[in-house]
Amino acid sequence: MTVEVLEVPGVPEIAPGDDLAASVGDALARVGVREGDVVVVTQKIVSKAEGRLAPASDRQAVVESETARVVARRGDLVIAETHHGFVCANAGVDASNAGAPDTLVLLPLDPDASARALRARLGCAVVITDSFGRAWRQGQCEIAIGCAGLAPIRDWRGEPDSEGRELHATQIAIADEVAAAADLVRGKDTRQPAVRIRGLERYVIDGDGPGAAALIRSREADLFP
Amino acid sequence: MTVEVLEVPGVPEIAPGDDLAASVGDALARVGVREGDVVVVTQKIVSKAEGRLAPASDRQAVVESETARVVARRGDLVIAETHHGFVCANAGVDASNAGAPDTLVLLPLDPDASARALRARLGCAVVITDSFGRAWRQGQCEIAIGCAGLAPIRDWRGEPDSEGRELHATQIAIADEVAAAADLVRGKDTRQPAVRIRGLERYVIDGDGPGAAALIRSREADLFP
Repeated sequence: MTVEVLEVPGVPEIAPGDDLAASVGDALARVGVREGDVVVVTQKIVSKAEGRLAPASDRQAVVESETARVVARRGDLVIAETHHGFVCANAGVDASNAGAPDTLVLLPLDPDASARALRARLGCAVVITDSFGRAWRQGQCEIAIGCAGLAPIRDWRGEPDSEGRELHATQIAIADEVAAAADLVRGKDTRQPAVRIRGLERYVIDGDGPGAAALIRSREADLFP
Repeated sequence: MTVEVLEVPGVPEIAPGDDLAASVGDALARVGVREGDVVVVTQKIVSKAEGRLAPASDRQAVVESETARVVARRGDLVIAETHHGFVCANAGVDASNAGAPDTLVLLPLDPDASARALRARLGCAVVITDSFGRAWRQGQCEIAIGCAGLAPIRDWRGEPDSEGRELHATQIAIADEVAAAADLVRGKDTRQPAVRIRGLERYVIDGDGPGAAALIRSREADLFP
């Protein structure tokens, strides 16, 4: 089995109100896209198209309004749970690659809805990603904050392993692994927000599916604050 | 830019004392391998070759001996920090795909050393991976527990973003993203422990590098228990 991860060049700078699906669709058409492909786009471009921007001077108030719960804090850094249920630095509010000076980019209000809307227009599975830090490990990994048309989790529980032994606790976060794979072809200093992944047909589903919301663990189920 | 992730068929079942590098090397030779490729192998096969096995009847004592610190506990599940500094379920002790009934597989004693030894024989970068759960998110992701010849982290701090704005807090856990990408071509029900990734030349380094140990955050630097 082979999976091919391809950077999609030529998506233009996006501003609030732009037709993101048309811009990504045009760029995809130049490299080719077909059923069974997965298109991965960064949160930044989705948020810009949706007008999820704020002036940098309002930073503290914006982070507070995006925060449902403060998980940890050290100096300027706040690890917060967002209203979506994501746990990340500064509730996902970030000033890098904002497209304009002194501008903050906020997470989309409903990234799974954003992914569904893109999927309806592009005709292939869509994953929307952002870079999150992790507890206990250095460095950030790209993860899925929205998805449509892709099974976000492959649940092996109750199925046999290669020796016929029942697997008890194995659920694989496919959408997060897709996000990570897409990040490998991207540079933070380039402006290529779209990646096409080919070869994941076994995880592509007919409908939109449960979205990346399925990757959020409920507070009750978690062992961590 | 394109990255190609290829499942490498034909690595045989591995038993303690087997020459893992010879087995993986033979399988790689059949699909081809060249400088700049990254070979990703699962922890299970490395641990088996190194004899890191124990009888299932000793489970509790084995988990305890692999544990440096209990991070959290619920019922049978222990989230533990291992002596390497990894935080994971049951200190990395697992019975699935063990290769023999009633057998536990332990993490390699020094996975970076295991990766270095494989790299010396295979002549390409090596990443050794395992599936870890995460705080706050459902599902497990494959992460790097050992690596050699690959920059584990791409540090963008102090460099400009696409608009020339200095990036302040962006370190990307490349080796973990490589592990995740490799997992996308694998099934837990097949026995293909090796994956070849082509197209990551920009992260391949001349020496062994700091290894996956660089991905472990020190307790002092972490905001979490």
